Amino acid sequence: MAPPAAIEVLAETDTSTFTIPDRLTLQSVAKRRAASGKVNAGVAAAADVEAFKGATQHLHKPKAKRWDHRLTTEAKARKASSLKNAARLLKTPGLISLGGGLPSSEYFPFDEVSIKVPQNGQFSEKATHEHGKVVTAGKHDLAEDKSLFDVATAFQYGQGTGSAQLLRWMIEHTELVHDPPYQDWSSTMTVGSTSATDMAFRMFCKPGDWIMTEQFTFPSMVETVRPMGVQVAGIPMDEYGMRADALDELLSNWNEAERRGPKPFVLYIVPTGQNPTGATQPEQRRRDIYAIAQKHDLYILEDEPYYFLQMQPYTGPNSPDAPPPASHEDFLKSLVPSYLSMDVDGRVMRFDSFSKVIAPGSRLGWITASEQICDRYRTHADFSTQGASGMSQLILFKLLEDHWGHEGYLDWLIHIRMEYTARRNTILGACERYLPKDIVSWVPPMAGMFHWLQIDYTKHPAYVAREKTMDEIEEEIFLKNVERGTLLMKGSWFCGEEGVERDVMFFRATYAAAPFEKIDEAIRRFAGSVREVFGLEQLSNGSH
Amino acid sequence: MAPPAAIEVLAETDTSTFTIPDRLTLQSVAKRRAASGKVNAGVAAAADVEAFKGATQHLHKPKAKRWDHRLTTEAKARKASSLKNAARLLKTPGLISLGGGLPSSEYFPFDEVSIKVPQNGQFSEKATHEHGKVVTAGKHDLAEDKSLFDVATAFQYGQGTGSAQLLRWMIEHTELVHDPPYQDWSSTMTVGSTSATDMAFRMFCKPGDWIMTEQFTFPSMVETVRPMGVQVAGIPMDEYGMRADALDELLSNWNEAERRGPKPFVLYIVPTGQNPTGATQPEQRRRDIYAIAQKHDLYILEDEPYYFLQMQPYTGPNSPDAPPPASHEDFLKSLVPSYLSMDVDGRVMRFDSFSKVIAPGSRLGWITASEQICDRYRTHADFSTQGASGMSQLILFKLLEDHWGHEGYLDWLIHIRMEYTARRNTILGACERYLPKDIVSWVPPMAGMFHWLQIDYTKHPAYVAREKTMDEIEEEIFLKNVERGTLLMKGSWFCGEEGVERDVMFFRATYAAAPFEKIDEAIRRFAGSVREVFGLEQLSNGSH
Repeated sequence: MAPPAAIEVLAETDTSTFTIPDRLTLQSVAKRRAASGKVNAGVAAAADVEAFKGATQHLHKPKAKRWDHRLTTEAKARKASSLKNAARLLKTPGLISLGGGLPSSEYFPFDEVSIKVPQNGQFSEKATHEHGKVVTAGKHDLAEDKSLFDVATAFQYGQGTGSAQLLRWMIEHTELVHDPPYQDWSSTMTVGSTSATDMAFRMFCKPGDWIMTEQFTFPSMVETVRPMGVQVAGIPMDEYGMRADALDELLSNWNEAERRGPKPFVLYIVPTGQNPTGATQPEQRRRDIYAIAQKHDLYILEDEPYYFLQMQPYTGPNSPDAPPPASHEDFLKSLVPSYLSMDVDGRVMRFDSFSKVIAPGSRLGWITASEQICDRYRTHADFSTQGASGMSQLILFKLLEDHWGHEGYLDWLIHIRMEYTARRNTILGACERYLPKDIVSWVPPMAGMFHWLQIDYTKHPAYVAREKTMDEIEEEIFLKNVERGTLLMKGSWFCGEEGVERDVMFFRATYAAAPFEKIDEAIRRFAGSVREVFGLEQLSNGSH
Repeated sequence: MAPPAAIEVLAETDTSTFTIPDRLTLQSVAKRRAASGKVNAGVAAAADVEAFKGATQHLHKPKAKRWDHRLTTEAKARKASSLKNAARLLKTPGLISLGGGLPSSEYFPFDEVSIKVPQNGQFSEKATHEHGKVVTAGKHDLAEDKSLFDVATAFQYGQGTGSAQLLRWMIEHTELVHDPPYQDWSSTMTVGSTSATDMAFRMFCKPGDWIMTEQFTFPSMVETVRPMGVQVAGIPMDEYGMRADALDELLSNWNEAERRGPKPFVLYIVPTGQNPTGATQPEQRRRDIYAIAQKHDLYILEDEPYYFLQMQPYTGPNSPDAPPPASHEDFLKSLVPSYLSMDVDGRVMRFDSFSKVIAPGSRLGWITASEQICDRYRTHADFSTQGASGMSQLILFKLLEDHWGHEGYLDWLIHIRMEYTARRNTILGACERYLPKDIVSWVPPMAGMFHWLQIDYTKHPAYVAREKTMDEIEEEIFLKNVERGTLLMKGSWFCGEEGVERDVMFFRATYAAAPFEKIDEAIRRFAGSVREVFGLEQLSNGSH
């Protein structure tokens, strides 16, 4: 792709007098938009990412590393569509196209799509039901200059990148939150992070390879990659998530013969509110891991569905709550910096998702990575998933762009933050009240949906007597839970690496879904199960 | 999966007195639904395909062949999700789940989704705009017994199959139209047929394999499979599409050493309104190809986006139009039987799509195949694409199930049929009027979006004088077209097989998208280009 003229001119200027531009802010978004001109927003229009990023905003940054040495044959073999190349001719004035096999929007049986959504600042389900705002997308709003996006465009075929209209919002949001420290970063839409993970593995992994991830991890990720013939190495964790020293040790001592595979270079991590442990890596841990990624030339897959489920500090059961963020700036500053925000090399692919903060059913997210990697991703998307559902894109565009804008969305995220804080505090309060602390221990989660409860199985009489194994006790607690009417997940289900001895026992509880009073009751039942299985007395305020 | 009790009982009865049940009809759908009971329609509920099919309806049919010998290591290695297995416990009465990592629907910022859609029988864009019906999905319609589907359910996580609510409609529709002649057929949702093709190739093909398809084919399909290291063999065609004898010949004489690959068994075909040729295989051609598939143990991928773009017979430029189908039954009888409808072995995976008959932006379709194959597909979907967008699913459910029903949808398809007939007749009329018939020839398309125009390049003076090649003349016409303000696609872009000599020249024109009068004008311009390139006189009513 030829660089826009503005970049060429600037590249010739004397860089010693060059002033580093200010970082994009909520206030400067409108200015950039005005400067970059009208969005090319027609049917299947290509998204002009450079314009969305602001042509000169990133020129002072280094360029990303190339990843040719890491990409698979499949990923390298993909070519842009020959038919889509012909579509460039569509810009010829007066041209009548009998070219593209697109149905006429005349035959889309939809005249309007409306959504009833929260007014800014009145975010509760009840407030939305009672006096939410109805936002409508008409069929030809774009041609009629009413909106940048409409039914005729969104419900038509699109590009593997997703629509320019919504992608612009994503790029601005990404820059506001992360401001990647290299020049040629880009974003492209996904049909959800599960699919994006599948596609990323196909870009980097071949049968016989290993990838690395946290010791306890999201089983679906493992079940995505293992059928490709790829094995998963689990890196030991502490309360701050993956241990940097353990990662370095694994890589420094990798034995190809023993492992029957080359030294791995793909690192899959969930740095914030990790599933299942709930652990959040603090900034320094991230910097340490990034340094090790540089040392061993790793490529990092940063999967961050829970990033905006970072909560208020936990002040304990009897202390007043911390006040909510005082401004959008305060809120953004309160977030742990992402890997993307420290990625000077372009070695991170970040997965963003709406599943935990808007709705999982959108099946729509985006990745951010260097242009080389985004290009490989979107070329694959063009021939597999294509863009995300246009119906989802239109609904999210109407909510995020035409209704809320960036500010309104941050307000919504602050609302979600406070709600999850209350939920987290509820489960921690219940744990304090009901659980036998000599047997069950935990670290208060700072982000995400999960509370990770460690069980000291060595105190179980049958374990002491060598009559039961750890696994048997885990199963016993699990079944006792169901009998007492609560479901928690067994920690053993989350072991990423096959055939590794475990010597710790955990249960995962989510506080995201159940109503507040049921969370309390469920933990009371869980406490009853543990007490019963361990032969302790029941509490007098009584688990039944 | 254990068979429902009804099947077990029946299997023990004396089959000599067994009466073959009547085929499902529009009239009997309601009866079956009543008999199969309430749909399990909650959050991420598993779809009970057996109930949707009617437990005893298909027992008299043979069972599908097994395809273990054809599936890839990857496809065979996939296992059901361990966490989703735990979800079965959710049916325990009174259970409070802290198990699944699902966000509470309380935090979906949507109270309602509404669509304005055509009233039954008043299908034009204008009628829909002026007095279309507004159909609304509320947040908790399911809990409030107002509908089977709602925002809280559709916008939540779902299954790889897609939602039970919409899948039931798809299965009934499939049975009404195709009634597959084997017992254990099933359907599962896709995120569009491009993705489904990608996933099907990964199920059946490994690097070094060949697949077979029509000589001229959809380039995106080739660009999907080739990076997987799979080659494409093009089967010669005539006006009825792929030639059965040529397919048999290729397979009977396959030379592994010469081709550097094993004898192929995956046959990808677009039997109706094929892209780019517009060819439609008549019933006998399909039966012949199916017999050859049986002879060589092929697996057929039947990609049918244009199936419901079958048009009225072409009666010529000056004859009255054929009357529209008199009833739903007449309409269904007018359709060429599908491969699925003749698939006694379960060797067909049929791809259905809404892209050409509702809207491409839904990114939602479905496949129909044997339970073994559907199971492998949906297990892959669980760890990659997941289900189609819930937003799309809800919109289509409201339109197809809650508003139109099966009858209304068939009415809509008849409307589309008549519209495409008029479009096809417009382009054929223009071709008759403007094109030099000694140089350009064509077969009237019976289905689809494409008109395939053959150019007799051997009549070009520079070809006769050996001064220009066929490819140069094709390029010259293409560029002249753009110069004269019209875009048609070069036939050479649609050659599936690499490195094969061509001795025919075609251009593809679509009549699906442009307004009627522009179609006429575009063909007039195309005629002018051909005349100019071939050095003929321009028509006096004149291409400009």
